[in-house]
Amino acid sequence: MIRLYHSPLSPFCRKVRLVLGEKRQEVELIEERYWEKSVEFLRRNPAGKVPVLRMDGKTLTESGPICEYIEEKIAEPALMPPTVDGRYEVRRLVMWFDDKFHHEVTANLVYERVNKKLTGEGYPDSSKIKAGAKAIKYHLDYMGWLLDQRRWLAGDTLTLADFAAAAHLSSLDYISDVDWNRNENVREWYAKIKSRPAFRSILADQVPGFPPPPHYADLDF
Amino acid sequence: MIRLYHSPLSPFCRKVRLVLGEKRQEVELIEERYWEKSVEFLRRNPAGKVPVLRMDGKTLTESGPICEYIEEKIAEPALMPPTVDGRYEVRRLVMWFDDKFHHEVTANLVYERVNKKLTGEGYPDSSKIKAGAKAIKYHLDYMGWLLDQRRWLAGDTLTLADFAAAAHLSSLDYISDVDWNRNENVREWYAKIKSRPAFRSILADQVPGFPPPPHYADLDF
Repeated sequence: MIRLYHSPLSPFCRKVRLVLGEKRQEVELIEERYWEKSVEFLRRNPAGKVPVLRMDGKTLTESGPICEYIEEKIAEPALMPPTVDGRYEVRRLVMWFDDKFHHEVTANLVYERVNKKLTGEGYPDSSKIKAGAKAIKYHLDYMGWLLDQRRWLAGDTLTLADFAAAAHLSSLDYISDVDWNRNENVREWYAKIKSRPAFRSILADQVPGFPPPPHYADLDF
Repeated sequence: MIRLYHSPLSPFCRKVRLVLGEKRQEVELIEERYWEKSVEFLRRNPAGKVPVLRMDGKTLTESGPICEYIEEKIAEPALMPPTVDGRYEVRRLVMWFDDKFHHEVTANLVYERVNKKLTGEGYPDSSKIKAGAKAIKYHLDYMGWLLDQRRWLAGDTLTLADFAAAAHLSSLDYISDVDWNRNENVREWYAKIKSRPAFRSILADQVPGFPPPPHYADLDF
Protein backbone atom coordinates (compact mmCIF):
# COMPACT_ATOMS: atom_id res chain seq x y z
CA MET A 1 0.00 0.00 0.00
CA ILE A 2 1.02 3.62 -0.56
CA ARG A 3 2.35 5.25 2.58
CA LEU A 4 2.71 9.00 3.11
CA TYR A 5 4.77 10.55 5.87
CA HIS A 6 3.14 13.92 6.39
CA SER A 7 2.24 16.80 8.66
CA PRO A 8 -1.49 17.70 8.75
CA LEU A 9 -1.33 21.44 7.93
CA SER A 10 1.61 21.26 5.50
CA PRO A 11 0.26 22.52 2.14
CA PHE A 12 2.80 20.36 0.30
CA CYS A 13 1.56 17.20 2.06
CA ARG A 14 -2.05 18.22 1.52
CA LYS A 15 -1.43 18.64 -2.21
CA VAL A 16 -0.05 15.08 -2.43
CA ARG A 17 -2.98 13.73 -0.35
CA LEU A 18 -5.48 15.49 -2.61
CA VAL A 19 -3.86 14.21 -5.80
CA LEU A 20 -3.72 10.62 -4.46
CA GLY A 21 -7.36 10.94 -3.33
CA GLU A 22 -8.47 12.23 -6.71
CA LYS A 23 -6.73 9.23 -8.32
CA ARG A 24 -8.70 6.97 -5.91
CA GLN A 25 -5.60 5.61 -4.19
CA GLU A 26 -5.76 4.28 -0.66
CA VAL A 27 -2.99 5.80 1.43
CA GLU A 28 -1.62 4.99 4.84
CA LEU A 29 -0.94 8.34 6.53
CA ILE A 30 1.87 8.55 9.06
CA GLU A 31 2.20 11.79 10.93
CA GLU A 32 5.81 12.89 11.07
CA ARG A 33 7.18 15.29 13.66
CA TYR A 34 9.75 16.32 11.02
CA TRP A 35 11.20 19.14 13.16
CA GLU A 36 12.55 16.54 15.62
CA LYS A 37 14.72 15.23 12.77
CA SER A 38 14.75 11.65 14.04
CA VAL A 39 17.51 9.45 12.64
CA GLU A 40 15.02 7.14 10.96
CA PHE A 41 13.24 10.04 9.28
CA LEU A 42 16.47 11.63 8.05
CA ARG A 43 17.44 8.26 6.59
CA ARG A 44 14.26 8.32 4.50
CA ASN A 45 14.78 11.93 3.42
CA PRO A 46 18.13 13.62 4.04
CA ALA A 47 16.46 16.97 3.31
CA GLY A 48 14.49 16.46 6.55
CA LYS A 49 11.20 17.57 4.99
CA VAL A 50 7.71 16.19 4.49
CA PRO A 51 6.05 14.88 2.36
CA VAL A 52 7.88 11.57 1.93
CA LEU A 53 5.98 9.01 -0.15
CA ARG A 54 6.52 5.25 -0.20
CA MET A 55 5.11 3.96 -3.48
CA ASP A 56 6.06 1.24 -5.97
CA GLY A 57 8.83 0.14 -3.56
CA LYS A 58 10.51 3.54 -3.75
CA THR A 59 10.89 6.49 -1.41
CA LEU A 60 9.92 9.74 -3.10
CA THR A 61 10.45 13.30 -1.88
CA GLU A 62 9.56 16.84 -3.04
CA SER A 63 5.86 17.43 -3.59
CA GLY A 64 6.20 18.81 -7.16
CA PRO A 65 8.13 15.83 -8.57
CA ILE A 66 5.91 13.46 -6.49
CA CYS A 67 2.72 14.84 -8.07
CA GLU A 68 4.17 14.62 -11.60
CA TYR A 69 5.19 11.02 -10.81
CA ILE A 70 1.69 10.11 -9.61
CA GLU A 71 0.19 11.81 -12.67
CA GLU A 72 2.44 9.82 -15.02
CA LYS A 73 1.90 6.52 -13.17
CA ILE A 74 -1.86 6.72 -12.69
CA ALA A 75 -3.35 8.18 -15.85
CA GLU A 76 -7.00 8.51 -14.78
CA PRO A 77 -8.46 10.92 -13.98
CA ALA A 78 -5.95 13.15 -15.80
CA LEU A 79 -4.82 16.16 -13.77
CA MET A 80 -2.62 17.59 -16.53
CA PRO A 81 -3.97 18.99 -19.83
CA PRO A 82 -3.12 17.30 -23.15
CA THR A 83 -1.31 20.33 -24.66
CA VAL A 84 2.21 21.69 -24.08
CA ASP A 85 0.79 25.17 -23.41
CA GLY A 86 -1.74 23.75 -20.98
CA ARG A 87 0.90 21.84 -19.04
CA TYR A 88 3.11 24.94 -18.86
CA GLU A 89 0.24 26.93 -17.36
CA VAL A 90 -0.42 24.22 -14.75
CA ARG A 91 3.26 24.09 -13.76
CA ARG A 92 3.50 27.89 -13.64
CA LEU A 93 0.54 28.07 -11.26
CA VAL A 94 1.79 25.19 -9.08
CA MET A 95 5.02 27.19 -8.65
CA TRP A 96 3.02 30.39 -8.06
CA PHE A 97 1.30 28.78 -5.08
CA ASP A 98 4.12 26.61 -3.76
CA ASP A 99 6.75 29.35 -4.05
CA LYS A 100 5.27 32.87 -4.13
CA PHE A 101 1.98 32.27 -2.29
CA HIS A 102 3.73 30.04 0.24
CA HIS A 103 6.44 32.61 0.91
CA GLU A 104 4.09 35.60 1.11
CA VAL A 105 1.05 34.05 2.76
CA THR A 106 1.24 30.49 4.15
CA ALA A 107 4.65 30.87 5.80
CA ASN A 108 3.58 34.18 7.36
CA LEU A 109 0.29 32.87 8.72
CA VAL A 110 0.24 29.08 9.21
CA TYR A 111 3.90 28.77 10.19
CA GLU A 112 3.78 31.77 12.51
CA ARG A 113 0.52 30.86 14.22
CA VAL A 114 0.79 27.05 14.35
CA ASN A 115 4.18 25.56 13.44
CA LYS A 116 6.14 27.83 15.76
CA LYS A 117 4.05 26.65 18.72
CA LEU A 118 4.20 22.98 17.71
CA THR A 119 7.95 23.05 17.23
CA GLY A 120 8.65 25.17 20.30
CA GLU A 121 10.19 28.02 18.30
CA GLY A 122 8.37 30.70 20.27
CA TYR A 123 5.65 33.25 19.62
CA PRO A 124 4.21 34.44 16.32
CA ASP A 125 5.88 37.53 14.84
CA SER A 126 3.06 40.07 14.46
CA SER A 127 4.76 41.87 11.57
CA LYS A 128 4.79 38.62 9.60
CA ILE A 129 1.12 37.94 10.39
CA LYS A 130 0.27 41.43 9.19
CA ALA A 131 2.26 40.90 5.98
CA GLY A 132 0.51 37.56 5.35
CA ALA A 133 -2.96 39.00 6.00
CA LYS A 134 -2.24 41.79 3.52
CA ALA A 135 -0.73 39.52 0.83
CA ILE A 136 -3.59 37.01 0.81
CA LYS A 137 -5.98 39.73 -0.41
CA TYR A 138 -3.89 40.33 -3.51
CA HIS A 139 -3.66 36.59 -4.16
CA LEU A 140 -7.41 36.04 -3.78
CA ASP A 141 -7.97 38.87 -6.27
CA TYR A 142 -5.53 37.25 -8.70
CA MET A 143 -7.33 33.90 -8.37
CA GLY A 144 -10.66 35.67 -8.90
CA TRP A 145 -9.30 37.28 -12.06
CA LEU A 146 -8.14 33.89 -13.42
CA LEU A 147 -11.53 32.37 -12.59
CA ASP A 148 -13.30 35.16 -14.47
CA GLN A 149 -11.87 33.62 -17.63
CA ARG A 150 -11.65 29.93 -16.74
CA ARG A 151 -13.71 27.23 -15.04
CA TRP A 152 -10.67 26.05 -13.07
CA LEU A 153 -7.45 27.90 -12.24
CA ALA A 154 -5.34 26.71 -15.17
CA GLY A 155 -8.10 26.27 -17.76
CA ASP A 156 -11.34 24.42 -18.30
CA THR A 157 -10.38 21.23 -16.48
CA LEU A 158 -9.39 20.41 -12.90
CA THR A 159 -5.58 20.11 -12.67
CA LEU A 160 -2.67 19.90 -10.26
CA ALA A 161 -2.79 23.71 -10.08
CA ASP A 162 -6.20 23.62 -8.37
CA PHE A 163 -4.97 21.11 -5.80
CA ALA A 164 -1.84 23.17 -5.12
CA ALA A 165 -3.98 26.25 -4.49
CA ALA A 166 -6.61 24.34 -2.49
CA ALA A 167 -3.91 22.79 -0.31
CA HIS A 168 -2.68 26.22 0.76
CA LEU A 169 -6.13 27.74 1.18
CA SER A 170 -7.40 24.77 3.20
CA SER A 171 -4.47 25.07 5.64
CA LEU A 172 -5.20 28.78 5.99
CA ASP A 173 -8.92 28.10 6.38
CA TYR A 174 -8.13 25.73 9.26
CA ILE A 175 -6.93 28.79 11.19
CA SER A 176 -9.69 31.08 9.83
CA ASP A 177 -7.33 33.17 7.73
CA VAL A 178 -9.34 33.18 4.49
CA ASP A 179 -11.98 35.85 3.90
CA TRP A 180 -14.41 33.92 1.71
CA ASN A 181 -16.46 37.07 1.16
CA ARG A 182 -13.66 38.82 -0.71
CA ASN A 183 -14.21 37.17 -4.08
CA GLU A 184 -17.30 35.27 -5.23
CA ASN A 185 -15.38 33.35 -7.95
CA VAL A 186 -12.89 32.02 -5.41
CA ARG A 187 -15.63 31.03 -2.99
CA GLU A 188 -17.48 29.10 -5.72
CA TRP A 189 -14.26 27.44 -6.88
CA TYR A 190 -13.39 26.39 -3.31
CA ALA A 191 -16.93 25.05 -2.73
CA LYS A 192 -16.57 22.91 -5.87
CA ILE A 193 -13.17 21.48 -4.96
CA LYS A 194 -14.01 21.09 -1.27
CA SER A 195 -16.95 18.83 -2.12
CA ARG A 196 -14.79 16.30 -3.96
CA PRO A 197 -14.25 12.95 -2.19
CA ALA A 198 -10.48 13.61 -2.27
CA PHE A 199 -11.02 16.43 0.23
CA ARG A 200 -12.63 14.29 2.96
CA SER A 201 -9.43 13.24 4.69
CA ILE A 202 -8.22 16.84 4.86
CA LEU A 203 -11.48 18.11 6.31
CA ALA A 204 -11.17 15.51 9.09
CA ASP A 205 -7.71 16.72 10.19
CA GLN A 206 -7.24 17.75 13.81
CA VAL A 207 -4.14 19.47 15.16
CA PRO A 208 -3.92 19.20 18.98
CA GLY A 209 -4.23 22.62 20.58
CA PHE A 210 -5.67 24.12 17.40
CA PRO A 211 -9.32 23.10 16.92
CA PRO A 212 -10.61 24.08 13.46
CA PRO A 213 -13.48 26.61 13.21
CA PRO A 214 -16.98 25.12 12.61
CA HIS A 215 -17.09 26.27 8.95
CA TYR A 216 -13.80 24.45 8.13
CA ALA A 217 -15.40 21.08 7.30
CA ASP A 218 -18.75 22.55 6.24
CA LEU A 219 -19.36 22.08 2.50
CA ASP A 220 -21.86 24.93 2.62
CA PHE A 221 -19.54 27.46 4.27
CA MET B 1 13.45 35.09 -32.24
CA ILE B 2 13.48 33.84 -28.66
CA ARG B 3 14.12 36.64 -26.16
CA LEU B 4 15.22 36.11 -22.56
CA TYR B 5 15.06 38.81 -19.89
CA HIS B 6 17.73 37.77 -17.43
CA SER B 7 20.34 38.68 -14.85
CA PRO B 8 23.86 37.30 -15.54
CA LEU B 9 24.56 35.53 -12.23
CA SER B 10 21.01 34.32 -11.57
CA PRO B 11 21.21 30.49 -11.49
CA PHE B 12 17.60 30.27 -12.68
CA CYS B 13 18.36 32.40 -15.77
CA ARG B 14 21.56 30.46 -16.39
CA LYS B 15 19.65 27.18 -16.33
CA VAL B 16 17.26 28.45 -19.01
CA ARG B 17 20.17 29.81 -21.11
CA LEU B 18 21.97 26.45 -20.88
CA VAL B 19 18.89 24.47 -21.86
CA LEU B 20 18.17 26.77 -24.84
CA GLY B 21 21.84 26.55 -25.85
CA GLU B 22 21.86 22.76 -25.65
CA LYS B 23 18.77 22.74 -27.89
CA ARG B 24 20.71 24.96 -30.35
CA GLN B 25 18.32 27.90 -30.08
CA GLU B 26 19.48 31.42 -30.81
CA VAL B 27 18.42 33.72 -28.00
CA GLU B 28 18.38 37.49 -27.66
CA LEU B 29 19.51 38.23 -24.11
CA ILE B 30 18.20 41.36 -22.40
CA GLU B 31 19.70 42.16 -19.03
CA GLU B 32 17.01 43.13 -16.57
CA ARG B 33 17.63 45.22 -13.47
CA TYR B 34 14.69 43.36 -11.91
CA TRP B 35 15.20 44.90 -8.46
CA GLU B 36 14.22 48.32 -9.88
CA LYS B 37 10.81 46.84 -10.63
CA SER B 38 10.14 49.05 -13.66
CA VAL B 39 6.50 49.31 -14.74
CA GLU B 40 7.25 47.67 -18.08
CA PHE B 41 9.01 44.74 -16.44
CA LEU B 42 6.24 44.19 -13.89
CA ARG B 43 3.74 44.17 -16.75
CA ARG B 44 5.66 41.25 -18.28
CA ASN B 45 5.91 39.39 -14.99
CA PRO B 46 3.81 40.52 -12.02
CA ALA B 47 6.00 38.34 -9.80
CA GLY B 48 8.87 40.78 -10.56
CA LYS B 49 11.40 38.00 -11.12
CA VAL B 50 13.76 36.84 -13.84
CA PRO B 51 13.91 34.78 -16.02
CA VAL B 52 11.12 35.93 -18.31
CA LEU B 53 11.10 34.20 -21.71
CA ARG B 54 9.41 35.44 -24.88
CA MET B 55 8.89 32.40 -27.11
CA ASP B 56 6.19 31.27 -29.56
CA GLY B 57 4.46 34.64 -29.07
CA LYS B 58 4.02 34.01 -25.36
CA THR B 59 5.57 35.38 -22.18
CA LEU B 60 6.75 32.59 -19.90
CA THR B 61 7.90 32.81 -16.27
CA GLU B 62 9.33 30.44 -13.63
CA SER B 63 12.46 28.58 -14.68
CA GLY B 64 11.17 25.08 -13.83
CA PRO B 65 7.99 25.30 -15.95
CA ILE B 66 9.98 27.17 -18.66
CA CYS B 67 12.51 24.31 -18.95
CA GLU B 68 9.78 21.66 -19.11
CA TYR B 69 8.07 23.75 -21.81
CA ILE B 70 11.27 24.00 -23.88
CA GLU B 71 11.86 20.27 -23.41
CA GLU B 72 8.35 19.43 -24.64
CA LYS B 73 8.50 21.89 -27.57
CA ILE B 74 12.00 21.08 -28.84
CA ALA B 75 12.46 17.35 -28.60
CA GLU B 76 16.15 17.04 -29.62
CA PRO B 77 18.48 16.59 -27.92
CA ALA B 78 16.27 15.10 -25.17
CA LEU B 79 17.07 16.39 -21.68
CA MET B 80 14.53 14.19 -19.92
CA PRO B 81 14.80 10.38 -19.70
CA PRO B 82 12.21 8.15 -21.36
CA THR B 83 11.00 6.47 -18.14
CA VAL B 84 8.65 7.71 -15.40
CA ASP B 85 11.23 6.84 -12.75
CA GLY B 86 13.95 8.65 -14.68
CA ARG B 87 11.87 11.80 -15.04
CA TYR B 88 11.04 11.75 -11.32
CA GLU B 89 14.73 11.62 -10.46
CA VAL B 90 15.49 14.55 -12.78
CA ARG B 91 12.71 16.65 -11.26
CA ARG B 92 13.76 15.73 -7.73
CA LEU B 93 17.31 16.88 -8.39
CA VAL B 94 16.21 20.07 -10.14
CA MET B 95 14.24 20.89 -6.97
CA TRP B 96 17.21 19.87 -4.82
CA PHE B 97 19.39 22.47 -6.51
CA ASP B 98 16.80 25.20 -7.13
CA ASP B 99 15.31 24.97 -3.64
CA LYS B 100 17.66 23.40 -1.08
CA PHE B 101 21.05 24.19 -2.66
CA HIS B 102 19.85 27.67 -3.59
CA HIS B 103 18.61 28.39 -0.08
CA GLU B 104 21.65 26.94 1.69
CA VAL B 105 24.45 27.91 -0.69
CA THR B 106 23.70 30.27 -3.61
CA ALA B 107 21.57 32.73 -1.63
CA ASN B 108 24.17 32.82 1.16
CA LEU B 109 27.13 33.40 -1.15
CA VAL B 110 26.16 34.94 -4.51
CA TYR B 111 23.33 37.07 -3.15
CA GLU B 112 25.32 38.26 -0.15
CA ARG B 113 28.51 39.02 -2.04
CA VAL B 114 27.13 40.35 -5.36
CA ASN B 115 23.39 41.04 -5.46
CA LYS B 116 23.36 43.11 -2.26
CA LYS B 117 25.96 45.45 -3.71
CA LEU B 118 24.26 45.67 -7.12
CA THR B 119 20.86 46.40 -5.61
CA GLY B 120 22.20 48.77 -2.96
CA GLU B 121 20.97 46.63 -0.06
CA GLY B 122 24.19 47.05 1.91
CA TYR B 123 27.06 44.85 3.00
CA PRO B 124 27.35 41.05 3.00
CA ASP B 125 26.27 39.34 6.22
CA SER B 126 29.35 37.36 7.30
CA SER B 127 27.30 34.76 9.19
CA LYS B 128 25.45 33.94 5.97
CA ILE B 129 28.68 33.69 3.99
CA LYS B 130 30.04 31.32 6.62
CA ALA B 131 26.87 29.20 6.47
CA GLY B 132 27.06 29.05 2.66
CA ALA B 133 30.75 28.12 2.64
CA LYS B 134 30.00 25.30 5.08
CA ALA B 135 26.92 24.01 3.25
CA ILE B 136 28.56 23.82 -0.19
CA LYS B 137 30.97 21.15 1.12
CA TYR B 138 28.12 18.86 2.04
CA HIS B 139 26.48 19.46 -1.34
CA LEU B 140 29.69 18.76 -3.29
CA ASP B 141 30.03 15.50 -1.34
CA TYR B 142 26.45 14.56 -2.20
CA MET B 143 27.07 15.26 -5.89
CA GLY B 144 30.28 13.23 -5.72
CA TRP B 145 28.35 10.33 -4.21
CA LEU B 146 25.72 10.48 -6.99
CA LEU B 147 28.48 10.59 -9.62
CA ASP B 148 30.11 7.52 -8.09
CA GLN B 149 27.13 5.58 -9.38
CA ARG B 150 26.13 7.52 -12.49
CA ARG B 151 27.73 9.19 -15.50
CA TRP B 152 25.54 12.27 -15.05
CA LEU B 153 23.71 13.51 -11.94
CA ALA B 154 20.33 11.88 -12.60
CA GLY B 155 21.52 8.79 -14.50
CA ASP B 156 23.48 7.83 -17.58
CA THR B 157 22.37 10.71 -19.78
CA LEU B 158 22.72 14.49 -19.57
CA THR B 159 19.45 15.99 -18.27
CA LEU B 160 17.85 19.15 -16.91
CA ALA B 161 19.26 18.15 -13.50
CA ASP B 162 22.84 18.63 -14.71
CA PHE B 163 22.02 22.07 -16.09
CA ALA B 164 20.27 23.08 -12.86
CA ALA B 165 23.35 22.07 -10.84
CA ALA B 166 25.80 23.60 -13.33
CA ALA B 167 23.87 26.87 -13.31
CA HIS B 168 24.35 27.23 -9.54
CA LEU B 169 27.95 26.07 -9.52
CA SER B 170 28.92 28.37 -12.40
CA SER B 171 27.48 31.40 -10.56
CA LEU B 172 29.45 30.40 -7.47
CA ASP B 173 32.57 29.78 -9.54
CA TYR B 174 32.30 33.32 -10.91
CA ILE B 175 33.02 34.55 -7.38
CA SER B 176 35.57 31.78 -6.65
CA ASP B 177 33.35 30.02 -4.12
CA VAL B 178 33.77 26.45 -5.41
CA ASP B 179 36.64 24.30 -4.15
CA TRP B 180 37.25 22.12 -7.22
CA ASN B 181 39.75 20.06 -5.28
CA ARG B 182 37.16 18.76 -2.88
CA ASN B 183 35.75 16.01 -5.08
CA GLU B 184 37.32 14.55 -8.23
CA ASN B 185 33.96 13.27 -9.58
CA VAL B 186 32.44 16.72 -9.38
CA ARG B 187 35.44 18.33 -11.03
CA GLU B 188 35.31 15.86 -13.93
CA TRP B 189 31.56 16.33 -14.29
CA TYR B 190 31.94 20.12 -14.35
CA ALA B 191 34.78 19.93 -16.90
CA LYS B 192 32.52 17.83 -19.15
CA ILE B 193 29.52 20.14 -18.94
CA LYS B 194 31.62 23.31 -19.07
CA SER B 195 33.08 22.31 -22.43
CA ARG B 196 29.67 22.06 -24.11
CA PRO B 197 28.88 24.82 -26.65
CA ALA B 198 25.81 25.74 -24.56
CA PHE B 199 28.17 26.99 -21.84
CA ARG B 200 29.97 29.58 -24.00
CA SER B 201 27.60 32.47 -23.40
CA ILE B 202 27.78 31.93 -19.64
CA LEU B 203 31.56 31.84 -19.59
CA ALA B 204 31.60 35.22 -21.39
CA ASP B 205 29.46 36.94 -18.71
CA GLN B 206 30.84 40.05 -17.07
CA VAL B 207 29.29 41.74 -14.04
CA PRO B 208 30.55 45.34 -13.64
CA GLY B 209 32.56 45.69 -10.44
CA PHE B 210 32.98 41.91 -10.13
CA PRO B 211 35.59 40.63 -12.60
CA PRO B 212 35.61 36.81 -12.77
CA PRO B 213 38.76 34.94 -11.68
CA PRO B 214 41.05 33.74 -14.53
CA HIS B 215 40.03 30.07 -14.10
CA TYR B 216 36.31 30.90 -14.53
CA ALA B 217 36.28 30.64 -18.34
CA ASP B 218 39.18 28.18 -18.54
CA LEU B 219 38.05 24.75 -19.76
CA ASP B 220 41.15 23.22 -18.21
CA PHE B 221 40.62 24.72 -14.73
